[in-house]
Amino acid sequence: MKVDGVSYRPIWEEGGAVRIIDQTRLPFAFETTTLGSEADAAHAIREMLVRGAPLIGATAAYGMALAMREDPSDANLAAAWERLHATRPTAINLRWALDDVSARLRPLPPADRAEAAFARARAIADEDVAINRAIGEHGLTLIEAVAARKGRVNVLTHCNAGWLATCDWGTATAPIYMAHDKGIDVHVWVDETRPRNQGGFLTAWELGQHGVPHTVIVDNAGGHLMQHGEVDLCFVGTDRTTRTGDVCNKIGTYLKALAAHDNGVPFYVCLPSPTIDWTVADGVKEIPIEARRPEEVTEVQGLGRNGVETFRVVSPGSPGFNPAFDVTPARLVSGLVTERGVAAASEAGLRALFPERAAA
Amino acid sequence: MKVDGVSYRPIWEEGGAVRIIDQTRLPFAFETTTLGSEADAAHAIREMLVRGAPLIGATAAYGMALAMREDPSDANLAAAWERLHATRPTAINLRWALDDVSARLRPLPPADRAEAAFARARAIADEDVAINRAIGEHGLTLIEAVAARKGRVNVLTHCNAGWLATCDWGTATAPIYMAHDKGIDVHVWVDETRPRNQGGFLTAWELGQHGVPHTVIVDNAGGHLMQHGEVDLCFVGTDRTTRTGDVCNKIGTYLKALAAHDNGVPFYVCLPSPTIDWTVADGVKEIPIEARRPEEVTEVQGLGRNGVETFRVVSPGSPGFNPAFDVTPARLVSGLVTERGVAAASEAGLRALFPERAAA
Repeated sequence: MKVDGVSYRPIWEEGGAVRIIDQTRLPFAFETTTLGSEADAAHAIREMLVRGAPLIGATAAYGMALAMREDPSDANLAAAWERLHATRPTAINLRWALDDVSARLRPLPPADRAEAAFARARAIADEDVAINRAIGEHGLTLIEAVAARKGRVNVLTHCNAGWLATCDWGTATAPIYMAHDKGIDVHVWVDETRPRNQGGFLTAWELGQHGVPHTVIVDNAGGHLMQHGEVDLCFVGTDRTTRTGDVCNKIGTYLKALAAHDNGVPFYVCLPSPTIDWTVADGVKEIPIEARRPEEVTEVQGLGRNGVETFRVVSPGSPGFNPAFDVTPARLVSGLVTERGVAAASEAGLRALFPERAAA
Repeated sequence: MKVDGVSYRPIWEEGGAVRIIDQTRLPFAFETTTLGSEADAAHAIREMLVRGAPLIGATAAYGMALAMREDPSDANLAAAWERLHATRPTAINLRWALDDVSARLRPLPPADRAEAAFARARAIADEDVAINRAIGEHGLTLIEAVAARKGRVNVLTHCNAGWLATCDWGTATAPIYMAHDKGIDVHVWVDETRPRNQGGFLTAWELGQHGVPHTVIVDNAGGHLMQHGEVDLCFVGTDRTTRTGDVCNKIGTYLKALAAHDNGVPFYVCLPSPTIDWTVADGVKEIPIEARRPEEVTEVQGLGRNGVETFRVVSPGSPGFNPAFDVTPARLVSGLVTERGVAAASEAGLRALFPERAAA
């Protein structure tokens, strides 16, 4: 997608080096940086210069490639896996990418490993882009149907399931970018997404840079807008979807799904099929929800008179509690937009699109 | 209620002067200030040193008293009404209090007006306290019923319908303070309440000062907590309630009511009966919702390295939209806690408690 008129991905190769957008500086500064070593890649993941499951996976793969350029021995192959895995040990895609690259490199002679690792990292990124493009094309038909009926289409989204979280297009944003690029009059209501403000920071920034009309609202406002016909469609991403269609996503997604259901607004979840967890049947009961640092609730990052800093926004002495995700039951989800098409949010719906998954 | 162990009201008389808590300094500083003149009272209302409908009404009444002390003539009686009314011309309670005091003063000889105005201002404040105490007593029975069943009671509240918004006790907080003072183990989930953070700023501050256990959460988190049995009751306030029981309150109230309904959590609205608008039947269709300054969305006040300032928290260049209230349909409301008791959220329920209101 575009930044100031120039096409970017959040990770790319340039003159033999790996470069990324430093997302910790967004939205108040746009800076790119070079990953020149495995240590740089590890730092970028650990300190969240890159974030979003698919982008973390691609960055880890490039980290392995950089490690092989430094020392392609068996010992370093194993050690690099360990060092990179320790950066964000709970990230599923991180582990998947490290395992995938390691398994391909192990049989190779050390001298061939760096080149093979770069090729595989490039392929991992390209595969993610292809998946998101397919999600975008399926979601686009939903936007086109509304546009044909009424002209301007108002989409509401929560958090950042945008191109910054993937290798391009994003998941929830892919249909929006495609609609915009096709000339459809699409406008996006961007939920701020407290506590970390990924909506107001990242989604607003990337939509603005690409030229997509959008308006930031507080997380409290979406229900009111839906009551008054100001939202035609909701598109959100997901961290994990159960085989029954329950959706685990950023905290607050459930409240928007309730409002959409109450007002007859279609609520779609966009996801690459690898995020479907075929082992889980009941998302609310079975998925443990991580509580993050309470300081994310009691403090906010923002741009003040003296630059960007963290400031307190809760009465001093009052504690905070910070559940990071919630689960939206399948009954509130209009459909799951995958790279293979739009599935009903149910076990039958998902198995119909993914027949290779044997019944549990 | 208590501040650092000492009982306070947000407005009181002291040695012939009127004093208030300067709420613009909360929660980062506790300061009181003297209203020595009508101009001081007007400034306090205009600049929101006092806020909340009942407190604005009482402050306006004291403003009339201060005006009469300066010049009790007929001309100044009329002029003071105009000047005070202009401070927040859409505040219903402001106009009501000014009309009430003026009507009582007009027949009196000028020399008697200041004293009569002070007496009436005092009575307006005391009447508000009595109403809130009655709301608290009726709401307390709801908390006691939960406490009898399970011990600790978790209450969720949104925005600030606390003692700072009234002349004491608050509306939504009155049952909570009474339960706490009776020794019931009550804990409050305080919604931050973006964009103006009245929850994280004011509700958290006043609960903390009075010693009520509480935890601040982002507005996104309440649904998740209800899904997991962490909320026993919701108590919120209201700016305006229709005769059919629809509730207009701070933006985001509707989303919490949806979540409460979806999870079988009782959702109560606490209100003094003068806020019932007997002329409105359909809150969603008939109540116009004010859009406030978009800067309240794109900026936040907080305590940084250099003291309290306003910070940008949205991507530069991205616009915001700021609807201030939403309407919760009566079907989502478990009951309306009034000074006369708990009414069903319906026209029949309200008319049963307020039979003097002839059918429309």
